[in-house]
Amino acid sequence: MCEAPIGVFDSGVGGLTVYRRIVELLPREAVVYLGDTARVPYGTKSADTVIRYARSCAGVLLARGVKMIVVACNTASAYALEALEAELAVPVVGVIAPGAATAAGISRGGRIGVIGTPGTIASGAYDRAIRGRRPDARVHAKACPLFVPLAEEGWTDGPVPLGAAQAYLEELRAAAVDTLVLGCTHYPLLAGVIGAVMGEGVALVDSARETARAVAKVVVERELLRKSSTRPDHRFLVSDDPENFMRIGRRFLDDVLPAVEWVDF
Amino acid sequence: MCEAPIGVFDSGVGGLTVYRRIVELLPREAVVYLGDTARVPYGTKSADTVIRYARSCAGVLLARGVKMIVVACNTASAYALEALEAELAVPVVGVIAPGAATAAGISRGGRIGVIGTPGTIASGAYDRAIRGRRPDARVHAKACPLFVPLAEEGWTDGPVPLGAAQAYLEELRAAAVDTLVLGCTHYPLLAGVIGAVMGEGVALVDSARETARAVAKVVVERELLRKSSTRPDHRFLVSDDPENFMRIGRRFLDDVLPAVEWVDF
Repeated sequence: MCEAPIGVFDSGVGGLTVYRRIVELLPREAVVYLGDTARVPYGTKSADTVIRYARSCAGVLLARGVKMIVVACNTASAYALEALEAELAVPVVGVIAPGAATAAGISRGGRIGVIGTPGTIASGAYDRAIRGRRPDARVHAKACPLFVPLAEEGWTDGPVPLGAAQAYLEELRAAAVDTLVLGCTHYPLLAGVIGAVMGEGVALVDSARETARAVAKVVVERELLRKSSTRPDHRFLVSDDPENFMRIGRRFLDDVLPAVEWVDF
Repeated sequence: MCEAPIGVFDSGVGGLTVYRRIVELLPREAVVYLGDTARVPYGTKSADTVIRYARSCAGVLLARGVKMIVVACNTASAYALEALEAELAVPVVGVIAPGAATAAGISRGGRIGVIGTPGTIASGAYDRAIRGRRPDARVHAKACPLFVPLAEEGWTDGPVPLGAAQAYLEELRAAAVDTLVLGCTHYPLLAGVIGAVMGEGVALVDSARETARAVAKVVVERELLRKSSTRPDHRFLVSDDPENFMRIGRRFLDDVLPAVEWVDF
């Protein structure tokens, strides 16, 4: 079982930010990454649909023999994590609890902002996770639907993303949050403009980084660390065109992706 | 057969701009509108995936007994119209030929701009359709991926859409086009900023309006006009959450939508 890969899925390319942090922390692990690019995005879709999609993604990864599953998508974590944990025999790690725990831990005054897709915000998952750790916290959540297409378009600085950030973040600035959770795997690409709008006093929590730590913890605690010293295999699967995934994926990895394979759902 | 409804499908809400024009021209016709909101958008996906989705949408409409099918999505028209025309027994009307014909007809100097999704632009469908009608035309095409999320977010004026329009349309202004085809059903919502950036001398072609005329022509020529004088039934089907469709759909119709029904694909 230890030699088996870690399975990671996301609605598309965004989860590559999580993949990248996992590989940094666990360079000897094999990984299978699945991007459900034929049905992306999840963030604007309903709970029922996202749960259905998350189940089918987990099924594809299990068929590849993964030893654990990382739900590297905030919306899928918000809506489907409980169902997957209940149904699957392998450990499942989502992206919400790690980021929420960090935010609850580092916030000075307990005023915590969360930004994410409409689905993630509507689910209330961050609010529950943060207040579960820190009952006195005041959580201010805001959906920022345009941040995903801006990141995918590569418009991460300049007047358009800055204007969007100013419009979306006005409420959170007014609420004087001291900590802001980037509750979508795409948002680290916009950290420059988000940080500029929020100001230097506000700590940004990147859930990708925190999730990789949670994955490493599970791998170690469950004695799942890969033993072999051969070079680990990293595979990329997508449900739509591999070329497009490679093109946009480059922005997320600052690197060229290896071969990407198409899978039919 | 005449009493049967006209079937209209789109990846989501955008096709409501076409639906609206059809109802204006043909107020006695029954209509079944299908928005594939579980898999929206089509515009950033590959030809193979879009063709597969278009076939399944047509199948849902045929199961409802429609007398013709309107592909009210530019990307689906660009990639899947030929396949649907070849495979289906009912007439099929897409949104590209009508807009292209109008642009070819009204352009003074033959310099025609086309804006659309990455899929529509990559297909070259407008370029072929315009130059088929007017071989001397010079077609300048530009993908504008952010226009769809901007329209769905309701950000149709102000600095963010204006900045996006300035960035996307710079090339078309430099090419001195005299006519611009809004080659995506969402774009009429942004006609204000698009028109402002292009300037008064540039004619905007709204393919929704032209498509409704093409639909009316087919209905008349094939003797498919509904005879009954009872109030026609208009049904709305979606593959994801009906509530969200009704909320965003309102922006496209300037009106409240009647009950929307969920369909499983």
